[in-house]
Amino acid sequence: MTLQSVRIGLLGYGTVGGSLCGLINEQRSDIAALTGLDLSVTRVAVNDLSKERPGIGDAVLTGDANEVIHADDVDLVVELVGTIDLARRWIGDALRAGKSVVTGNKALLAAHGRELFDLAAANDAELLFEASVAGAIPLMRTLQKSLRGEPIDRIMGIVNGTTNYMLSAMTDQGADYADILAEAQRLGYAEADPTADVEGFDAQAKAAIIATVAFGVAVTSKDVPVEGITRVTSADIANAKRLGYVIKLLAVVERVGDQAPYEISARVHPAMVPLSHPLATVRGSFNAVFIEGTAVDELMLYGRGAGGRPTASAVLGDVIEAASGIAHGSVRTPPALADALVRAPEAAMSAFYLDLAVDDSPGVLAEVAGVFGANGVSIKSMEQEGLGSEATLAFITHQASEADIAATIEKLQSLPSVNRVGALYRVIGA
Amino acid sequence: MTLQSVRIGLLGYGTVGGSLCGLINEQRSDIAALTGLDLSVTRVAVNDLSKERPGIGDAVLTGDANEVIHADDVDLVVELVGTIDLARRWIGDALRAGKSVVTGNKALLAAHGRELFDLAAANDAELLFEASVAGAIPLMRTLQKSLRGEPIDRIMGIVNGTTNYMLSAMTDQGADYADILAEAQRLGYAEADPTADVEGFDAQAKAAIIATVAFGVAVTSKDVPVEGITRVTSADIANAKRLGYVIKLLAVVERVGDQAPYEISARVHPAMVPLSHPLATVRGSFNAVFIEGTAVDELMLYGRGAGGRPTASAVLGDVIEAASGIAHGSVRTPPALADALVRAPEAAMSAFYLDLAVDDSPGVLAEVAGVFGANGVSIKSMEQEGLGSEATLAFITHQASEADIAATIEKLQSLPSVNRVGALYRVIGA
Repeated sequence: MTLQSVRIGLLGYGTVGGSLCGLINEQRSDIAALTGLDLSVTRVAVNDLSKERPGIGDAVLTGDANEVIHADDVDLVVELVGTIDLARRWIGDALRAGKSVVTGNKALLAAHGRELFDLAAANDAELLFEASVAGAIPLMRTLQKSLRGEPIDRIMGIVNGTTNYMLSAMTDQGADYADILAEAQRLGYAEADPTADVEGFDAQAKAAIIATVAFGVAVTSKDVPVEGITRVTSADIANAKRLGYVIKLLAVVERVGDQAPYEISARVHPAMVPLSHPLATVRGSFNAVFIEGTAVDELMLYGRGAGGRPTASAVLGDVIEAASGIAHGSVRTPPALADALVRAPEAAMSAFYLDLAVDDSPGVLAEVAGVFGANGVSIKSMEQEGLGSEATLAFITHQASEADIAATIEKLQSLPSVNRVGALYRVIGA
Repeated sequence: MTLQSVRIGLLGYGTVGGSLCGLINEQRSDIAALTGLDLSVTRVAVNDLSKERPGIGDAVLTGDANEVIHADDVDLVVELVGTIDLARRWIGDALRAGKSVVTGNKALLAAHGRELFDLAAANDAELLFEASVAGAIPLMRTLQKSLRGEPIDRIMGIVNGTTNYMLSAMTDQGADYADILAEAQRLGYAEADPTADVEGFDAQAKAAIIATVAFGVAVTSKDVPVEGITRVTSADIANAKRLGYVIKLLAVVERVGDQAPYEISARVHPAMVPLSHPLATVRGSFNAVFIEGTAVDELMLYGRGAGGRPTASAVLGDVIEAASGIAHGSVRTPPALADALVRAPEAAMSAFYLDLAVDDSPGVLAEVAGVFGANGVSIKSMEQEGLGSEATLAFITHQASEADIAATIEKLQSLPSVNRVGALYRVIGA
């Protein structure tokens, strides 16, 4: 068998870059046997040339990304720097030079994906980005290939390992948010500045990419309303558990309506997930994505969403696919994205959990229920905890719009018998 | 955008064929927008031309498969007849005519896969078969694309929905095998002749295909030792539960050793799965495949393993990929399979569960433990249930070979204090 040589240029050499070089070196002969490709890393651009770079092999180190992008001995560029502006320029330059690019840069794709996909198509190059969402889970390839003909209804993902670790720990230990955050930071599961994770911004970018790829329309982070986990309390988790639910931070992407042009709804929020749902079993820092389609029915992909080697595994899959296109002299770029018809956030539909602190006097439930009804919100179940002035009413509704729930809450807050409107959660599978 | 027309010829029009035609008709414009491909079914070969075929559209019906395979208006052949000998010939003819083929025929691939893959490569045609293993779960594409560079250690799959439905029902209801089989047959989850499912032969063919694709070596059903679920009792399930396990029928595929050439071990048997393991949560007729790799860590794919529309979803993904290759004038066939070095069944390693009915007299445990030790089997845990002549000892061992366990059992059966060697199960995650 004649091997086809494909030479890789790397932008950035952090944990993922190091793992990728290690994998390519270790697996080089196995990859050759399975694919006919002889992969090698020939050039690596780094910020700091003075640092020791073990495992980099014979690749030429440079401090200048352009020397990688435009090198004659680089067929394929892997971008692992993670910034937005520089990466955007470098990826654009590589694509304009006709070189396929592999990246895991979710923030870049969620902001400027369409520009880069168009550049790839215009220059007959491939842009692959499996590592940008849910790490080692082959979600992008599943959506782009296996489910390309599938009428996808909804995708719900646990796509942020930090928050899933924290919510799992809060659930197991009955501990509060602040304590668990401190523990997660100590153990390295959360960053010193945890904002991007706990406020949901990381999941927001991933939701935008999932919606873009699943439905072939240009969705950006700005189209995705986001609510993080900072207001989730141990009491909420205990209440959810009592009703048979666990609280997870979900990225939800939906296609609304029965025929094209479809509206797309994408959002990130904590949700109550029934204990019997496959997503409820996803614990610790694992990620999982649950796909509902008309033909495929229910499909879930579960795995590592972060970490050097799992992320490198996803990058390597893309490298091999892009290299295969180079070796066959034919890349397969999809048609241009369509404009997205983004559903207004207030029109998004969910079931809701809502709890109210009330005076437990005759007629209060009737009054409260009347407010739900007057706002078009149908109650699925209600449970009362406690008595007298300490009573709490916990409601789960049928499907309702965000607007109708907001109007319901506004009215409830004005009732004298309602002391406090407590927690509000979207509920799935209800 | 100029659409590229790709015309599909169908061999067989049962439940899956009908669902596939329905999907292609319904999704035609969406698929065109997402891929640039205009798919149509132009010819369909059926056994019985007199039968009503709703939903077949404008396709020409014929009773002769050759009229589909060799038609000028067929670019791509989908084989859904499911027999071995005829399908082998027809697929071979289509590939020799340079036409890519999509099939879900697991029995054929597990027996003659290598011959057909070689034919595909020799004729520059693609042979895709996602639907042959685990229905709508994108396992083949994940192994062939996303994990092509991954050092895969082990794959464990629940790949037969009938037996998983039955074992789940036995677990939930505490009922016996015969009762649950009758119920499954009544509900349509098991066939009138359930042999292929309950004896594990269906899973055996799938294990052979998984091993072939995961490791790029030619493995056939004959290389896969198989044990079905017919001897699983409600008592075994109760014992497993008490120890924190659930019993599942698993297809296990492993790569043994640290460097090439690797030995491959593939087998099908019931196994005790810890309740905390993701595979333990797979209930009813769902399938799931759990992949362990050095870089990817743990990855699980979960979904529908059978049914008309889920299977058609998998076929459609392959149709679009093959059509994309045709449209780009370039197919990507992998290198030829290597010969498999199949590990001898008696050398396969597992942890084991073993229970013994013994006379509970002083010295019995020491004597029994001595037999384990003398045969090189290390005991991880032991629990005694009952007293006197009714005592049962339940052992879980550390990793041991099938040969050492067989020798241990033979010796135990000869001990006067051992009244009966009861159940034997492989244990995962122990």
